[in-house]
Amino acid sequence: MGPGPINAHPRVLRAMSADLLGQFDPEMTAYMNQVMALYRPIFGTANPWTFLVDGTARAGIEAALVSLVSPGDRVLVVNFGRFGLLLTEILLRIGAMIATVDAPWGEVVSMDAITAAIERTSPSLVACVHGDTSTTMTQPLEGIGALCRAAGALSYVDATATIGGMEIAADRWDVDIVTGGLQKCLGGPSGSAPITVSALAAERIFARRHVEQGIRTAHMADGVGPRIGSNYFDLAMIMDYWSDKRLNHHTEATTMLYAARECARTVLEEGLGARYARHAAAGRAMAAGLQAMGLSLFGDDRHRMTNVAGVYIPDGVDGERVRTAMRGQFQIEIGTAFGPLQGRIWRIGAMGYNAMLHKVLLTLGALEACLAAEGFALPGGVAIRAATQAWEG
Amino acid sequence: MGPGPINAHPRVLRAMSADLLGQFDPEMTAYMNQVMALYRPIFGTANPWTFLVDGTARAGIEAALVSLVSPGDRVLVVNFGRFGLLLTEILLRIGAMIATVDAPWGEVVSMDAITAAIERTSPSLVACVHGDTSTTMTQPLEGIGALCRAAGALSYVDATATIGGMEIAADRWDVDIVTGGLQKCLGGPSGSAPITVSALAAERIFARRHVEQGIRTAHMADGVGPRIGSNYFDLAMIMDYWSDKRLNHHTEATTMLYAARECARTVLEEGLGARYARHAAAGRAMAAGLQAMGLSLFGDDRHRMTNVAGVYIPDGVDGERVRTAMRGQFQIEIGTAFGPLQGRIWRIGAMGYNAMLHKVLLTLGALEACLAAEGFALPGGVAIRAATQAWEG
Repeated sequence: MGPGPINAHPRVLRAMSADLLGQFDPEMTAYMNQVMALYRPIFGTANPWTFLVDGTARAGIEAALVSLVSPGDRVLVVNFGRFGLLLTEILLRIGAMIATVDAPWGEVVSMDAITAAIERTSPSLVACVHGDTSTTMTQPLEGIGALCRAAGALSYVDATATIGGMEIAADRWDVDIVTGGLQKCLGGPSGSAPITVSALAAERIFARRHVEQGIRTAHMADGVGPRIGSNYFDLAMIMDYWSDKRLNHHTEATTMLYAARECARTVLEEGLGARYARHAAAGRAMAAGLQAMGLSLFGDDRHRMTNVAGVYIPDGVDGERVRTAMRGQFQIEIGTAFGPLQGRIWRIGAMGYNAMLHKVLLTLGALEACLAAEGFALPGGVAIRAATQAWEG
Repeated sequence: MGPGPINAHPRVLRAMSADLLGQFDPEMTAYMNQVMALYRPIFGTANPWTFLVDGTARAGIEAALVSLVSPGDRVLVVNFGRFGLLLTEILLRIGAMIATVDAPWGEVVSMDAITAAIERTSPSLVACVHGDTSTTMTQPLEGIGALCRAAGALSYVDATATIGGMEIAADRWDVDIVTGGLQKCLGGPSGSAPITVSALAAERIFARRHVEQGIRTAHMADGVGPRIGSNYFDLAMIMDYWSDKRLNHHTEATTMLYAARECARTVLEEGLGARYARHAAAGRAMAAGLQAMGLSLFGDDRHRMTNVAGVYIPDGVDGERVRTAMRGQFQIEIGTAFGPLQGRIWRIGAMGYNAMLHKVLLTLGALEACLAAEGFALPGGVAIRAATQAWEG
């Protein structure tokens, strides 16, 4: 019950024990095409280029940025936490000229500030995290695409921590690339990064498309434009592999593809609306329970992610000892925090397969017991009642 | 029964349906430490830095090269096939000054040629593939480390296609980084890249170590040296994550770690010597069976990989129609070929869980039937006898 990774859905676990297939086997390529179709509604898009990057969520981020950005390009990062800083960290390696528009940890960046920063910095790309688990804040993204279009900038959104739990609306937001990961609200393991790429972004990326010498045949040209700075993360090559051309690149990670497929199937069978409502109910219940215990939540209430809450460690309580007791006595993991929040807050999640009332209640009950053992005076039993009521809405 | 990916060992498939763990859970970090210990004998090394890169085998290659090489560094690539060309392709993106010492497809590069090329080009790194499945050749590596040490160069070996099936002797070869993949002789799925790093290579890599701003605490310095060109593939950061520091980087791909662990356990339980002998027997049997059918093998007999054979498509036979019939009628996949060999050879493998006599015999029997259906005159039944005798040695 931390900020992710979390327990996978049992159906996803079972899907991963299926036997493997050759990477160009018709059954395998049919599964690849299914995955493309399954992830379009989850990203809220009709983009044909919707597929997987073989690596963790961070691999998806780097693939998007290194394929969109050339050394010297100006990039504006909307930064309000550890994962905004990660975008700058990755862009630094790419050789981008980076500007940031920042909010303190626990807040989000206003659309006015983003507008002013775009005007000031004339970026070719605006990069932003949707939900930053380090601060538990969700950046509002309605209208960001129009701002970027007006300024001639492309846009990138890291939706790792929200995809499958909060609405992703790539087409309505009008953003160019969105990436995710399985290990949060999609209820799967880390190791595969779903990605969607707009027609405009695909055009920019294909303007740097090359074919590897080792697979080039007599009638194939090498390619055009400066090469993308990474081979593994070269989205032009990865898209040629996922297209009908099936040009060899990496060997698709079959088991992770099965996992990604089963995650998407469970999400769509539940229904996106029902799933977002379930995450919202779990978030409300967890927050209400924590507050009923006398604990204070971290950050701006208006922009809290539904699937993870930051909660201040009360004075006089040893945060790590409580986490150890939660894990040791109850087999429940809650999260520590990064950077300036380390030792100040816990991060408690309820996402994917864990966004269920009984898991929220078990967590609250366990935390109550661990806090009491630490000598923290709290009104016993009220958390469960408050959480149950909040779940009902 | 192609050049990989292949069928995974059933124990590996089952291991992947185990429930997930938090990335800093003591049970998880204990598994990480087990994986480090399990892969040392498989790599033939005592290197403490033996771990996993989260991505396909190609991710391991890029992580090694981008962490060892800075833009402008001179690198010598020992090139005898598609995967030697892949090394140059990746190095091109890193901005290396690349020289190659080449052999025609189907041969290997002599140690004399490598010696002369090192003298001529004074590289800071020599990079080489061990077994190149595109040509089915194995590059001899005894003595290569001493050559590199004498010239002050580091060395890198891509052992994707041989690890777990042919001997890898990182310490005896005295090479600095070796990487692999699970999807060939280790009998697992694509998606995790085992890697071993020598003390000297680790020192060079740590000379470029940085700590991400988002996880830096007050007492932590940023870092030293020019940043490695990729964040995801920054081995200094990945090693800080796999070390007792457990500094957050990517979220370890839990299921793929379970797979890598179970692959190594099955390998070590069988015993490395027995396993290499089994692959050699399967290779002998397959080659003898193909030749008994009247087919000709591709490439230099002295340097053939034990786990995959290239075989010429006979005149008048449609290679793709045979592959389709093998898959359609017998559910057996055999491989096509890349670049200059496309349409000229098939690549038929027997590796990992598939390096078993009955699978070799079933493949030969099916191929005999498909060739006969194509009107290729061949002496019926002799392949099975020849293969069985060759298996016995």
